[in-house]
Amino acid sequence: MPGNAFGTAFRFATWGESHGPAIGCIVDGVPPRIPLTEDEIQPWLDRRRPGQSKFVTQRKEPDTVRILSGTFDGVTTGSPIALIIENADQRSRDYSEIKDLFRPGHADYTYWKKYGIRDFRGGGRASARETAMRVAAGAVARQVLAKAWGDIFKIRGAMIKMGPLCINDERWDWDIVSDNPFWCPDAKALPLWERFLDTVRKEGSSAGAVVEIHGEGVPAGLGEPVYDKIDADLAKAMMSINAVKGVEIGQGFASAALAGEYAHDAMRMLGGEVVFKSNRSGGVLGGITNGQPVIARFAVKPTSSLLKPQQTVTVDGRETMAITKGRHDPCVGIRAVPVGEAMMACVLADHWLRHQGQTGRQPD
Amino acid sequence: MPGNAFGTAFRFATWGESHGPAIGCIVDGVPPRIPLTEDEIQPWLDRRRPGQSKFVTQRKEPDTVRILSGTFDGVTTGSPIALIIENADQRSRDYSEIKDLFRPGHADYTYWKKYGIRDFRGGGRASARETAMRVAAGAVARQVLAKAWGDIFKIRGAMIKMGPLCINDERWDWDIVSDNPFWCPDAKALPLWERFLDTVRKEGSSAGAVVEIHGEGVPAGLGEPVYDKIDADLAKAMMSINAVKGVEIGQGFASAALAGEYAHDAMRMLGGEVVFKSNRSGGVLGGITNGQPVIARFAVKPTSSLLKPQQTVTVDGRETMAITKGRHDPCVGIRAVPVGEAMMACVLADHWLRHQGQTGRQPD
Amino acid sequence: MPGNAFGTAFRFATWGESHGPAIGCIVDGVPPRIPLTEDEIQPWLDRRRPGQSKFVTQRKEPDTVRILSGTFDGVTTGSPIALIIENADQRSRDYSEIKDLFRPGHADYTYWKKYGIRDFRGGGRASARETAMRVAAGAVARQVLAKAWGDIFKIRGAMIKMGPLCINDERWDWDIVSDNPFWCPDAKALPLWERFLDTVRKEGSSAGAVVEIHGEGVPAGLGEPVYDKIDADLAKAMMSINAVKGVEIGQGFASAALAGEYAHDAMRMLGGEVVFKSNRSGGVLGGITNGQPVIARFAVKPTSSLLKPQQTVTVDGRETMAITKGRHDPCVGIRAVPVGEAMMACVLADHWLRHQGQTGRQPD
Amino acid sequence: MPGNAFGTAFRFATWGESHGPAIGCIVDGVPPRIPLTEDEIQPWLDRRRPGQSKFVTQRKEPDTVRILSGTFDGVTTGSPIALIIENADQRSRDYSEIKDLFRPGHADYTYWKKYGIRDFRGGGRASARETAMRVAAGAVARQVLAKAWGDIFKIRGAMIKMGPLCINDERWDWDIVSDNPFWCPDAKALPLWERFLDTVRKEGSSAGAVVEIHGEGVPAGLGEPVYDKIDADLAKAMMSINAVKGVEIGQGFASAALAGEYAHDAMRMLGGEVVFKSNRSGGVLGGITNGQPVIARFAVKPTSSLLKPQQTVTVDGRETMAITKGRHDPCVGIRAVPVGEAMMACVLADHWLRHQGQTGRQPD
Repeated sequence: MPGNAFGTAFRFATWGESHGPAIGCIVDGVPPRIPLTEDEIQPWLDRRRPGQSKFVTQRKEPDTVRILSGTFDGVTTGSPIALIIENADQRSRDYSEIKDLFRPGHADYTYWKKYGIRDFRGGGRASARETAMRVAAGAVARQVLAKAWGDIFKIRGAMIKMGPLCINDERWDWDIVSDNPFWCPDAKALPLWERFLDTVRKEGSSAGAVVEIHGEGVPAGLGEPVYDKIDADLAKAMMSINAVKGVEIGQGFASAALAGEYAHDAMRMLGGEVVFKSNRSGGVLGGITNGQPVIARFAVKPTSSLLKPQQTVTVDGRETMAITKGRHDPCVGIRAVPVGEAMMACVLADHWLRHQGQTGRQPD
Repeated sequence: MPGNAFGTAFRFATWGESHGPAIGCIVDGVPPRIPLTEDEIQPWLDRRRPGQSKFVTQRKEPDTVRILSGTFDGVTTGSPIALIIENADQRSRDYSEIKDLFRPGHADYTYWKKYGIRDFRGGGRASARETAMRVAAGAVARQVLAKAWGDIFKIRGAMIKMGPLCINDERWDWDIVSDNPFWCPDAKALPLWERFLDTVRKEGSSAGAVVEIHGEGVPAGLGEPVYDKIDADLAKAMMSINAVKGVEIGQGFASAALAGEYAHDAMRMLGGEVVFKSNRSGGVLGGITNGQPVIARFAVKPTSSLLKPQQTVTVDGRETMAITKGRHDPCVGIRAVPVGEAMMACVLADHWLRHQGQTGRQPD
Repeated sequence: MPGNAFGTAFRFATWGESHGPAIGCIVDGVPPRIPLTEDEIQPWLDRRRPGQSKFVTQRKEPDTVRILSGTFDGVTTGSPIALIIENADQRSRDYSEIKDLFRPGHADYTYWKKYGIRDFRGGGRASARETAMRVAAGAVARQVLAKAWGDIFKIRGAMIKMGPLCINDERWDWDIVSDNPFWCPDAKALPLWERFLDTVRKEGSSAGAVVEIHGEGVPAGLGEPVYDKIDADLAKAMMSINAVKGVEIGQGFASAALAGEYAHDAMRMLGGEVVFKSNRSGGVLGGITNGQPVIARFAVKPTSSLLKPQQTVTVDGRETMAITKGRHDPCVGIRAVPVGEAMMACVLADHWLRHQGQTGRQPD
Repeated sequence: MPGNAFGTAFRFATWGESHGPAIGCIVDGVPPRIPLTEDEIQPWLDRRRPGQSKFVTQRKEPDTVRILSGTFDGVTTGSPIALIIENADQRSRDYSEIKDLFRPGHADYTYWKKYGIRDFRGGGRASARETAMRVAAGAVARQVLAKAWGDIFKIRGAMIKMGPLCINDERWDWDIVSDNPFWCPDAKALPLWERFLDTVRKEGSSAGAVVEIHGEGVPAGLGEPVYDKIDADLAKAMMSINAVKGVEIGQGFASAALAGEYAHDAMRMLGGEVVFKSNRSGGVLGGITNGQPVIARFAVKPTSSLLKPQQTVTVDGRETMAITKGRHDPCVGIRAVPVGEAMMACVLADHWLRHQGQTGRQPD
């Protein structure tokens, strides 16, 4: 059975290969009368676009999105929304040298084992180019949620770790996140991060990252017990992003080390409303949102395409060394930030629509 | 839309509340002619059963499973398999004191926000009692996989961290895992773990844990790109277990700190077969198994039911303190080990069946 | 992949064989705070129960339903509702003579081809006994819809053709439908129908039927284009009932013979509301309800279990004659009436909940 | 929840409006290494194309399909296949006169009630233009089945009734079906059919039709009990086609009038194989194929767009008359023949792939 779609009530399905003529997606389940034109989608794509700094792949892709269906006079109609992006710079020649060998850490070996076919052009479906359509679908999800929840709703992400380098939480400043090539929220960390990644890039190596996504203004009550908990769906969403190897909600792995009395969020009343004295849970209790910001974190492993030689084998069972000369990201975590934001937007939109169908009432 | 089912081709749906007359599940999609009686399921339930040591809840539940449909003469027929366990010891009186208040870190607040209804008896659907049916479904999944993959296939789990206490990986010994109350693989760590948890229990506090699950003998080629990657489904499966706040595959979060050349698994030939020189990937590349052991890890937060008082509020908006006197686990991570194993079994069985439908051929 | 569940937002899954210990179902997706006890379900089961007249199977089944989960204090909680009925009279001995042969027109041959296994006890999953759980699920669906739509909402069915005998539409009287063993709406037709079926029964033959179901008080706007049209889902629901070979909506097959100007429903205004001057469409336009009564019709073939000998073959490829001496219905169409009603209730409840999730607003 | 996709293991989702820039679909779940280029799809589209005779709409659409993803070197890769057709002749001006009124029998009223939005350009998603993508998806399904089942497999359809005019079954000749504008299998009926439809067309009226589809070479064992019976899925597939109001399998509604001993198919042995002495069942028993040809029939109501005036109302509640001057089909049943074939191909491909996943073995 196919695995190219995500979501249930808000559902999108993507298609296209890294080096085919185009990539695209269908977004289905969008309620009618939501404002939507290309102008609402393009800015989010621009944030993910390659070639914007020396720290990301130099592939030249304008990533211009077109809406082919599902809107009329600038609003959605309730019909499926088809989005398409032409591939402009699908230089397959870069891949000729690796045509017959498997790159360690890359999906080409497992695709070959699964399908018995080899599309050597830059990873085919396994390429991170697919994530452009996640960002596009996420932009549609944001429109759905913005109409439902208003200005209070916001999703934003940051890179909180690059390779071995951390940030200082105390210096977290959302205002600088969009102004640096790393989505780093700690101004003081920036110079070191730049020097580090420059070295990595020149050495032909690569670096991993940890990305954190915040969803603010999310009402309480979203999430379906027992197996479609909203944190379970977030985990699936984040883990499905290329190169992600771990996902956390709230305190995550750190919570394992805490004593029970320090691991939960005390509750108090404030102005007639329930308030939490902390957000250790990351906004989710029992798989359902509690009205606090939803906080998810994920780990991205270093890019598997390296200039440094790696031991590998060929399709016909010969031992050799892999060196990837194509255009690649020294730290794919950078471009994973807008993708992680988009996936959270899609999960929230999905659970918002599911909740309405499930309970027949608006969450508080 | 409902969220009480898991899986696609191998699919199970559970029902029942912690303090209702019974709990049960339907397992659907099981191929015909697989050996299955209660004897194949009960041993796995016995491993999860409460009351087996002083370190788990003292609730007395024999957890005797009955098969009500789907088998004939000791083998499956292809029809849905209904499993049922009667609740023997559903003492609701323990909950009278917390009837009107929300326990911090517990799902009662969010269920109330979602459904506008309050079933105060021990958590209802949110109770970890539901996980008994996951273990039962997992036992069925093991039978499916054992028939398909033979003796080489094995799923087993261990607790590798309890509260702040780690193990020494070098001393990992699978043989002792079933012989201690913590599923701990490090014999030398045991005395300290016992003393620690005994103290936690007596203080009315609780401890978190990290659990690691290994799936061995898994063929290459399982997993559906792009959104139903096998690691994405494992992440959802693990995150859906009560109190889990983080999931990792292979090196997980640690991979973020590594240089690219140390983060992947070199490939070599051995006796005409591709072999990997390490298993940093945890057996998954691009969301598809590569033939190495599948390794997943998850973090369990400390139990939210504590004897220690916690600041909270009541249903009618009054501030108060919560003290939970019911029978609870000082470290729910212990009983999460068989549950994590079961969820991996279900994910593997699901993807095995999906793969056969998808490609029309057996994976290598 | 399994096929034992129906519906999407309102979803039920059934289990159990004709001659196992029990049959049951899970109903999931039911909104919280809907009144539901066994008293709301049992009366509908009683209408379908075997043994109520000489015109239906003499198997003695009280069909007493029990709710095992999903309700608290007489209302639904939003959790899955488990229903169970014990099989009281599963006499397998009746089947010993047909143990090795395939009954023409019966599913035993195709199940054997599909699963490679033979459960000869009265049809296993293919038995119409399964439909008891459809009626139970339908009773839950009625509760959901009654709360949403009020007293104006009503689903009722009638048998409009038995074997070659028709009714006179002009004499249609809903009041007599429940008072005769055939659900026949035409009082004048009754004596002939009785004589006819009595003859059929004594001859060891069987008769087919046509059943018509009306859904009244259904709001406009339900149904999801393009593939989940409400009439497409009704067609699937009705065709999935045992022995059904045809389904119609509104004028159905008759509409093929009409000229365009006589095949549609003119629209007018009445008291500020749109009214239709006829209901040729059966309440559905473009797959979406238009506010008129939803009308579906289905054809039931004659029971395949006959006392009259039929040419057939055995499991081991021997030619022989089949004579079925078990207890059977001379006209299964009779007991299909409550089942057809139940399936319409489930389809409407499903689309009602889907519509709310889809459009974020109440249909008019 | 969205309803723009069909199928489970072989699954396609369509998008696009009658008067938008393009229409398209994603076909997912196609096994790898199946031969597929535009040349395998275009001929099937050409059969459905408008403007081929005076008996179908004169809209000029070349309906040239392009494959945008999912193939490499002329075979499928296992990735989703994106297909697109540009709309060449989307003249919206034809619709200006009906901009504000609802056409009786047409979906514009119900879409407006459902979505609260009005896209007056030729029906939007409700237009039969969408069926071009069904034909394209069906062509892909045929490739899947041709590879699996070989030359013995064939799907073909015919129009067996047009308005009040029938055919004579005894004269059925598949060879002439493609050579006349009506897909009529009875050469002697043709002159009358032509005269009849010519009159209908000139009068500005329209005619209904009954279409019959045969699937030959289908192995036994396909179909999932209880709710995903293959005939239930066929019923849904056919009923989802525009203007269809009834569906039958095998003898269909006629079987209701038969005595039990004449309603089933006797079984005999021939050369060691089970053979049926008739095909009253239409190739399906208990929802599972029995190895005989699968036969489905559906009724198409007359086109709702008429030159003859019809009573109707406007969006703002004014009574008026509707006259549709756009280019339309006097008998939409004609172009429904290739669509019905395509839907059967998709259902068979879906159940073929599901069956492999379900039972882990090839059907006999």
